[in-house]
Amino acid sequence: MSLLAIGTLAYDTIETAAAKREEQLGGSVTYFSLAAALFGPVSVVGVVGDDFRGKDTELMRSRGVDLAGLEVAAGKTFRWSGRYEADWNTRHTISTHLNVFEHFDPKVPLAARSAKFLFLANAAPEIQAKALAQVVKPAFVMADDEEARMLTGEKNLLRAAAKALTLGPRFVVLKKGEHGAFLIGRDAHFALPAYPVEEVVDPTGAGDSFAGGFMGHLAAAGEVDAGALRRSMLHGTATASFCVEGFGVDRLARCTKAEIDARCGELRAIVTV
Amino acid sequence: MSLLAIGTLAYDTIETAAAKREEQLGGSVTYFSLAAALFGPVSVVGVVGDDFRGKDTELMRSRGVDLAGLEVAAGKTFRWSGRYEADWNTRHTISTHLNVFEHFDPKVPLAARSAKFLFLANAAPEIQAKALAQVVKPAFVMADDEEARMLTGEKNLLRAAAKALTLGPRFVVLKKGEHGAFLIGRDAHFALPAYPVEEVVDPTGAGDSFAGGFMGHLAAAGEVDAGALRRSMLHGTATASFCVEGFGVDRLARCTKAEIDARCGELRAIVTV
Repeated sequence: MSLLAIGTLAYDTIETAAAKREEQLGGSVTYFSLAAALFGPVSVVGVVGDDFRGKDTELMRSRGVDLAGLEVAAGKTFRWSGRYEADWNTRHTISTHLNVFEHFDPKVPLAARSAKFLFLANAAPEIQAKALAQVVKPAFVMADDEEARMLTGEKNLLRAAAKALTLGPRFVVLKKGEHGAFLIGRDAHFALPAYPVEEVVDPTGAGDSFAGGFMGHLAAAGEVDAGALRRSMLHGTATASFCVEGFGVDRLARCTKAEIDARCGELRAIVTV
Repeated sequence: MSLLAIGTLAYDTIETAAAKREEQLGGSVTYFSLAAALFGPVSVVGVVGDDFRGKDTELMRSRGVDLAGLEVAAGKTFRWSGRYEADWNTRHTISTHLNVFEHFDPKVPLAARSAKFLFLANAAPEIQAKALAQVVKPAFVMADDEEARMLTGEKNLLRAAAKALTLGPRFVVLKKGEHGAFLIGRDAHFALPAYPVEEVVDPTGAGDSFAGGFMGHLAAAGEVDAGALRRSMLHGTATASFCVEGFGVDRLARCTKAEIDARCGELRAIVTV
């Protein structure tokens, strides 16, 4: 079924303990859509500046991402710059320049308004709300929030998730990086460790590519029951594991569905008891 | 099959965000043996001072722990004092007084020298080696080390475990607290999230009770194949989850095998994909 995602497209400057890369393609909806496109069609709503490189739109199109909802505004594309500690668990933001994203007013193309699956990447709640209001009758909406502990004031992750549940959603998914992810619903609980990546190159986009694999698989399955959610977690986890194996979108953008499936099989074997 | 454990018995003073408790029964081998005793016989080698309370030895005996190898020395029992941050992930040691443990020279009773399963709690390597040398032909030895990253100089947990493997053991188990545990061997990999405990009261002893449940189950199964190791991880995880629900050994010491089994069933359902 149809999948729509709203969020940022960006140029990132990223420093790890091993390397530094400037002005590389990034942004939440970029990672999300490249991941989701492995499973089926995905449409993007976002804004870029007039400095956005043709080869980057071309890359996304070539992977099956529908860019009809991509606005090009006068000015510069969103820029983010950050640095990771050697253990990957700490990320320092060096600078964020919203640029054209500062006045982003999401406009969902007519054809995408009937989308059944909707992903609202981490952004100002007003942007998320504006996008949501334009989609006629979504069957499943996933909204990304940076920080569950912050959102709920809870230190215990499980209680943070339980508290987030009381804010309205049917399910809450917590992404914990190298420690995996878990999903809780009113009467659902599912947990999965991360796929064991031996050589992390760049963790940027791990959360968004997880979400992309998750929603991509869910939309392709077309129904939202407990089993589908579990299998979507599995696919999201496998997708994210490829993302972190390369700088920026490098590895994700040449990943195949067969590779994802193989890794899902490995992960299934790893958790079977 | 027979299980033997060497480590500390202690009195702990513990401060959490919610409470403070002084001079409570603790120590690595205390938690380990109370956990392992849920699955079958376990013998302990350790030392306490002449201040060790009769009710504490009585508690351990009543739970089925064999204390023939428990030495009582003139002086004070090992003391540890620490404080946890509200998120449980940071533990500050306030003081450690080895007391009688400073000159601990482990003596394994004759009857326990044929033990097939051996647990060496975190301690000076010379103590671990001395104990190991007295056991005739153990089939499976688990040695606890506080800090895999420190031991190997590796930041990536998986690579730390892989590097620890090259030091000799057949398997390495990493305990990650609220993030679960994983096991790797030369051609084995198994990961499990933690059981979702809603109200952590005191995380002290979580690692040792995990090890106790793990080794207790393994010794009871009597064989060490991939399936047995996976099921032992499951039982260790369930056992640790009870431990952290009470202060000190409170909850662990009134836990039943039926409760463990029920929680293993829940955990199995949580990870099934």
